[in-house]
Amino acid sequence: MSLRRQLAELLVLRCSGHLLDQQRRYPQWEASNAELQHWLAEGVGGVILLGGSAAELALRCRQLQQWASTPLLLCADVEEGVGQRFEGASWLVPPLALGGVHQHNPTAAIELARAYGRCTGMEALALGLNWVLGPVCDVNNNPANPVINVRAWGETSESAAALSRAFTEGLQGSGVLGCAKHFPGHGDTASDSHLELPLIPHNLTRLNAVELPPFKAAIDAGVASVMTAHLLLPALDPKRPATLSPAVLEQLLRKELGFSALVVTDALVMEAISSRYGAGEAAALAFEAGADLILMPADAGAALDALEAGFRSGRFSSARLEQSLHRRRAALARTTPSPSTAQEGLDQLAAMTAEHSGLSHQLLERSLECQGQGPPAGPGLNLIRVDKSLNCPALPLQAPALIRPAQLGFTPRLIDDLAGPLKLRSLGDGPVLLQLLVRGNPFRGSADGGNPWQRLVGELLEQQRLAGLAVYGSPYLWRELSALLPQNIPAAYSPGQMPAAQELVLQAMGLGTCASDNGFTD
Amino acid sequence: MSLRRQLAELLVLRCSGHLLDQQRRYPQWEASNAELQHWLAEGVGGVILLGGSAAELALRCRQLQQWASTPLLLCADVEEGVGQRFEGASWLVPPLALGGVHQHNPTAAIELARAYGRCTGMEALALGLNWVLGPVCDVNNNPANPVINVRAWGETSESAAALSRAFTEGLQGSGVLGCAKHFPGHGDTASDSHLELPLIPHNLTRLNAVELPPFKAAIDAGVASVMTAHLLLPALDPKRPATLSPAVLEQLLRKELGFSALVVTDALVMEAISSRYGAGEAAALAFEAGADLILMPADAGAALDALEAGFRSGRFSSARLEQSLHRRRAALARTTPSPSTAQEGLDQLAAMTAEHSGLSHQLLERSLECQGQGPPAGPGLNLIRVDKSLNCPALPLQAPALIRPAQLGFTPRLIDDLAGPLKLRSLGDGPVLLQLLVRGNPFRGSADGGNPWQRLVGELLEQQRLAGLAVYGSPYLWRELSALLPQNIPAAYSPGQMPAAQELVLQAMGLGTCASDNGFTD
Repeated sequence: MSLRRQLAELLVLRCSGHLLDQQRRYPQWEASNAELQHWLAEGVGGVILLGGSAAELALRCRQLQQWASTPLLLCADVEEGVGQRFEGASWLVPPLALGGVHQHNPTAAIELARAYGRCTGMEALALGLNWVLGPVCDVNNNPANPVINVRAWGETSESAAALSRAFTEGLQGSGVLGCAKHFPGHGDTASDSHLELPLIPHNLTRLNAVELPPFKAAIDAGVASVMTAHLLLPALDPKRPATLSPAVLEQLLRKELGFSALVVTDALVMEAISSRYGAGEAAALAFEAGADLILMPADAGAALDALEAGFRSGRFSSARLEQSLHRRRAALARTTPSPSTAQEGLDQLAAMTAEHSGLSHQLLERSLECQGQGPPAGPGLNLIRVDKSLNCPALPLQAPALIRPAQLGFTPRLIDDLAGPLKLRSLGDGPVLLQLLVRGNPFRGSADGGNPWQRLVGELLEQQRLAGLAVYGSPYLWRELSALLPQNIPAAYSPGQMPAAQELVLQAMGLGTCASDNGFTD
Repeated sequence: MSLRRQLAELLVLRCSGHLLDQQRRYPQWEASNAELQHWLAEGVGGVILLGGSAAELALRCRQLQQWASTPLLLCADVEEGVGQRFEGASWLVPPLALGGVHQHNPTAAIELARAYGRCTGMEALALGLNWVLGPVCDVNNNPANPVINVRAWGETSESAAALSRAFTEGLQGSGVLGCAKHFPGHGDTASDSHLELPLIPHNLTRLNAVELPPFKAAIDAGVASVMTAHLLLPALDPKRPATLSPAVLEQLLRKELGFSALVVTDALVMEAISSRYGAGEAAALAFEAGADLILMPADAGAALDALEAGFRSGRFSSARLEQSLHRRRAALARTTPSPSTAQEGLDQLAAMTAEHSGLSHQLLERSLECQGQGPPAGPGLNLIRVDKSLNCPALPLQAPALIRPAQLGFTPRLIDDLAGPLKLRSLGDGPVLLQLLVRGNPFRGSADGGNPWQRLVGELLEQQRLAGLAVYGSPYLWRELSALLPQNIPAAYSPGQMPAAQELVLQAMGLGTCASDNGFTD
């Protein structure tokens, strides 16, 4: 096999889960079908899929495998159940919900995290994925973290470690590979590596105490891969971000932690890397630092050129390449084959989602919080905040957040980034039921940099117009706002934003009716 | 074969194009998979599909056929190309656009309508449909019509007839069945039969002059089915709506127009019928009046019970049943088989959509109207009106209507039914680029019953703040608003609302850049 073909096996390209070129949501980042066919024929060994429904994913995975000249690693960022990204599969509450449970009931939390992993793995496999890019092993000890937040398994190192381990066991036990990320720990940052290169000021002692235990636990559980973080850790490497740092990958991850399976970069197309090093050199530096797989190179051709040049010039040894290829094949050998047809996979999925609805529901119930007494007194305004109302998977037209309050006379009003600034006087003067679908940084989405919800809740309370409060997503926002409320105001929180979470939250607030009459609880 | 089984063949049930029960958007109307399997095993002979992408539809059609005990009629309301409802297939401008072209260039319009039909038929067949519920043969001679509007092929009887004929020829030439609707003509109503029973005061002389010619043209072209309208026509039948009227179906359609193929009811679940007659009796009355197929009975079991009772009691003759079954089988015999696997069908679709992009583009260009000079001067506000921003297929996150104006400094702001009343003072005081995605009744969506856009345009002009105007959809709204504008203000109109229409409209207004850089023009 030619050197270039061997190198191509190490690339993981991004593609849309939709089947037709014109359905791509981000054509600037997602290869067209002609490009995919070209690269897969050239020997590219992995694809990361984003977008599309479960049914589309099932077709797509088989199509890609058919176009490929080598067995593929097919992966997706399905950290919160396959349904988080591929509609039709099970969509679970974010992991941090179990981090909360772990604080007072570790045994139950660990059992649920294992079931969470199993659910994700089984459904991924049915659809055709063999590699799930989770668990997120970062410890979310910085509530202002804009990018990890509820994706983490805990706010403490202990919870994150115990649950990452259990998730990995459940996941990989179902026959797919896992991926512990983002090494050596992305929890304690307040900036977003999608946009810039965050800096972690900690030294090895601190990393060993806080950031590394979840990775050690996942490695101990046999996790098949570790994903690097686009972070600068001057105490370990003053020059290069973790993704490109031999000190972090070779020294810390391989030697000190003894990790011998696949190391994969985070997406090299991300600004923090691509703008500094260029598409080709970023790939070469990552490989040089110890990465086996190159995820989403900004330019696949340039990455192959740079890697090939490194071998021709003697910068890399063939033993090093052999090692990476071997690790990739060893990983593939651990996977269970998916059902051969899409329809078979979907029939399996239908049975699985029915079986997993108990888990989904248990996770929702365990992480539900509520106070006050309902139902809210209407008629009034049902003010719903979402990041983006366009194509919002949490809000189908018959979402409980819309239709339950309507049954009590609350008229829905959506506010999002495209709705302009929120003015209290534009809300009329009746009661307001406030529903906030806010994840990540609770301060995000306000033009003035403050927390507009605290102010709005304060003003509505002052005018005795707050009929109720529902928070979906951020536990930080919930803690902050629920503390402001007097006991008579119905309020509830779920870490999940999906319709089933809305159903449960609104029921807790006295707005639910029969839970089984709209199909969202299954 | 049992009587009940034979009767079941005449039912057409509604099902979601999505594959999994939990993906149904309207579970109260869409049968679950268990229900579908039950009814198909009982011999139900037709399914109407709504929702899902092209890929999901391709899987679903094959799944339904596999569950069925008889070859199925599989239909959908894809009046504006299969992509209108199933993302991934070609989405064409509404038919009325060609009605406009037909006024000054009948030859070109007829040729395009034929290609429109061919495009729709080929793509439907590739995905697994064998019956397209079009052409809409209604003459849209009432601009206030809330339900037909741009779905019609013309505002005059001549245009509607010529184009309905050409569409039918193109459609059925590709191997699928067509359906002329809504007999005897739904164009001249100002109320919506989804909500109440509209009344048409015309007599036969007037119907023969205006409403009937498009149906005659489609019948002459060999259309395989005619769909009845839920309308009261006292001059023909003082008691019963067309769907349930022997005078309309037997006398007018069968005898006077000589139509011998399939007569199908419009959805019996619609309020105008279901609330008056009940699920069972509505089906029996429709059959008695001359309908062969019962579309979307409010309750399939009740419909079968009522039909069966009618035979047992001698209300219906077995010859009449034999006739309907024969017509159904004769229709099925006219269809071409779809590719046997979903992936085969999707591969065909991919080639077809590439081939049909020329037609899509030509239809858009032919129906584009513009005036004034661009580009609009930013920075300012990009105010976009849509009916519903939630799950709006016309507005993916990278829709030209959002991103093109942003490139010139216009900040997007969405207004829809859930955004609350529009207040001019909430728009700040800079320039406003106004984009209206409005179809159907131009007055819809305003609380005060007037036309808020006329007033808003007037106020913005008065304040010299109107930077530009784009109208997508209603030609009536465009005529009304464009007449208000001085020549220096860039403004354009497309009957289409899809991203490719936005690209073209904004280009005409000086807001486009390279047309090929976002994939929407294909």
